[in-house]
Amino acid sequence: MRAVDIIQKKRDGLELTSQEIQWLIEGYTAGTVPDYQMSAFAMAVYFKGMTTREISDLTMTMVGTGQQFDLSEIAGVKVDKHSTGGVGDKVTLVLVPLVASFGVPVAKMSGRGLGHTGGTIDKLESIKGFQVERSQEEFIQQVQDIELSVIGQSDQLVRADKLLYALRDVTATVDTIPLIASSVMSKKIAAGADSILLDVTVGEGAFMKNLADARRLAQTMVDLGKAVGRKTTAVITDMSQPLGTSIGNRLEILEALAILQGQGREDITVFICELAQIMLSLADVEKTAEEVRQHLTDGSALEKFEAMIAAQGGDLEDLYRPSSAAYVLEVTADQDGYITELPAMEFGLFAMRLGAGRAVKTDSLDYETGLVFEKKVGDRVRAGQVLAKIYANQKISQELVTDFKKNVKISNEAVKVSEIIEIIA
Amino acid sequence: MRAVDIIQKKRDGLELTSQEIQWLIEGYTAGTVPDYQMSAFAMAVYFKGMTTREISDLTMTMVGTGQQFDLSEIAGVKVDKHSTGGVGDKVTLVLVPLVASFGVPVAKMSGRGLGHTGGTIDKLESIKGFQVERSQEEFIQQVQDIELSVIGQSDQLVRADKLLYALRDVTATVDTIPLIASSVMSKKIAAGADSILLDVTVGEGAFMKNLADARRLAQTMVDLGKAVGRKTTAVITDMSQPLGTSIGNRLEILEALAILQGQGREDITVFICELAQIMLSLADVEKTAEEVRQHLTDGSALEKFEAMIAAQGGDLEDLYRPSSAAYVLEVTADQDGYITELPAMEFGLFAMRLGAGRAVKTDSLDYETGLVFEKKVGDRVRAGQVLAKIYANQKISQELVTDFKKNVKISNEAVKVSEIIEIIA
Repeated sequence: MRAVDIIQKKRDGLELTSQEIQWLIEGYTAGTVPDYQMSAFAMAVYFKGMTTREISDLTMTMVGTGQQFDLSEIAGVKVDKHSTGGVGDKVTLVLVPLVASFGVPVAKMSGRGLGHTGGTIDKLESIKGFQVERSQEEFIQQVQDIELSVIGQSDQLVRADKLLYALRDVTATVDTIPLIASSVMSKKIAAGADSILLDVTVGEGAFMKNLADARRLAQTMVDLGKAVGRKTTAVITDMSQPLGTSIGNRLEILEALAILQGQGREDITVFICELAQIMLSLADVEKTAEEVRQHLTDGSALEKFEAMIAAQGGDLEDLYRPSSAAYVLEVTADQDGYITELPAMEFGLFAMRLGAGRAVKTDSLDYETGLVFEKKVGDRVRAGQVLAKIYANQKISQELVTDFKKNVKISNEAVKVSEIIEIIA
Repeated sequence: MRAVDIIQKKRDGLELTSQEIQWLIEGYTAGTVPDYQMSAFAMAVYFKGMTTREISDLTMTMVGTGQQFDLSEIAGVKVDKHSTGGVGDKVTLVLVPLVASFGVPVAKMSGRGLGHTGGTIDKLESIKGFQVERSQEEFIQQVQDIELSVIGQSDQLVRADKLLYALRDVTATVDTIPLIASSVMSKKIAAGADSILLDVTVGEGAFMKNLADARRLAQTMVDLGKAVGRKTTAVITDMSQPLGTSIGNRLEILEALAILQGQGREDITVFICELAQIMLSLADVEKTAEEVRQHLTDGSALEKFEAMIAAQGGDLEDLYRPSSAAYVLEVTADQDGYITELPAMEFGLFAMRLGAGRAVKTDSLDYETGLVFEKKVGDRVRAGQVLAKIYANQKISQELVTDFKKNVKISNEAVKVSEIIEIIA
């Protein structure tokens, strides 16, 4: 086989055989197919797409290029969850202990953040002593003991994806659905998932900017999951404004704790309960909305979360410590009305300026800084009322406050928002 | 600027600025834009094309990446000619002395062949002593003295094209018209041409397999020529069968000599006279078909050719020497009828098997081998009549003869052929 023939076949819109896909991806991982052929191939895929069969071959070949976690020692259906990313997304922190509190094992690997804000792993690392690196044996043992562990994603997982993602990033081939779908799903499968819940975010603060693209991605991944024998459900969720009330590592841990105690904001609480219901159902455990919510109010989910923190070396006292940010400033509304816009990406980048996110991989994070919103889109506000608090470790300039206010749209007419836009199963 | 943004802009179908094209090509030549970005860019161009303005910026930037020949010391309009390639194409050998015999200076660089058969330079090298390497000064001096020189293309010409062509060859981005057009035209412009005649071949033995593609390429290059101030005419010519009667280096020299003495086959003689008329007209010299043909019958063109051979060290006695091939075999017709098909590519590859062409760059050529057709498409033939002669330096097997005959189609109905299909000016 020759890479040039495979590129040409895809360029001409033909379907590749399993052997061709396997040869190309294995060759690329081994270094015998060079970057310049792979980038031309990726661009051809951008224009010509791939069939579900091709994407499933691509995904399973990619899985084979790295370490694969065997979770079969853990009894029961292992459910994983993935979000295509957002601002203020602390869903995993609440969702996985909630699901585990029903006896469904969750052995989850998560990533660090790059771009506006930290990832789940960064947030967990804001807790003193918490360990995100675990051997496969320790990881499995912990899930057998307490049904729950969240660790950092292994560097050895899906080597082809690491190479390919770095290449796509510099060749304008990131936003092509077959390559996004195979990247996401290969990592979940290599991590040992039996069933997968996908949170496909859409809107200004998400990777997918419009509903049509989000639907295509969600449907592609659900079809792919079925093709490779993994029960998969996708929810399309709104990311036009930040999720929940806080952005920033320590601040999001605190919000997660509030939700786990039944004291979170109603919209994100309901949203997480809906996701938990779907995730439980993917593990063949059917629960009503009331039954799920009960585990937030009766302390079962919180107990599971604390058990995980303790098992991974985290300090339970430090867990509840408020942000130590040196400066906290309240931003107030200049007029009466309803909040109609809080653009997610703008506030994500705002939090990054405060140190809560990384611009480049090697940046270090300030865990304590960020934003806490008192009002969200749809809320009524009066002039002078607090909109949000800014947490910073540098003096907060008037310019920063002006930049913040510039992004808050207040109008006379109320707007309605809902987190889950669509469910694709 | 960032290469990824330029790739994305082209991917999204937008027109690039002159600055963007210049930055990309100069960076690629300098090695700061890597192959993997250039190949993704080339694939985006494959799908999204380029405007005439973009192609002219690309071409002129490419010209600037290598040596540029200044022919201004030579008086008059310097006309160049390029063919997109064919089988048995000895046109240059006759055309350039014919044009020069009217006092129009021709300072031409030609390439070697890769693929089925040798290039013009290979054919000339089959003449004992003939030198294809000349300094710029010697080259210009010879054209000033005798109006004619054909030399090997400088390695220093259009460095970007060398790099880009090698990359396109392995990334399935060769057959994209903006990149073909800029590759061809940048070399002609760097070689100092004022006016350019383009022979765009079409058919089974050509790069362009169908008339629509050939037309698009021809029109693109003519538009491009105008945009960069070079008078350009394109002819679209048939390459469904080999051109003229012979394929093979020494054999084509002999055919060229026959045409130069007015004893060539009528169709190729008429064809070359038509091209000469156009080329003269591009140098503002208007001649009738009769006037042009006169220079073949009165020996003026031959005299010019001999003068060039002598000026470049060629042995005029060796020039007329017949092929020294050890084995010559006549292939005869098995039935009566008209020849309807002589697929050019098949016979080109056949000649390559005899040693007349290179499979890879480092192959050496056998100048003496090849084919001479006695019958061409449209000719009437009787069973037992000679169709062609095979010239070889290895014993000619029955299998080879069978392979030859397999490609000759004879039918009861005559077909009409014409070399020039269309002229685009």
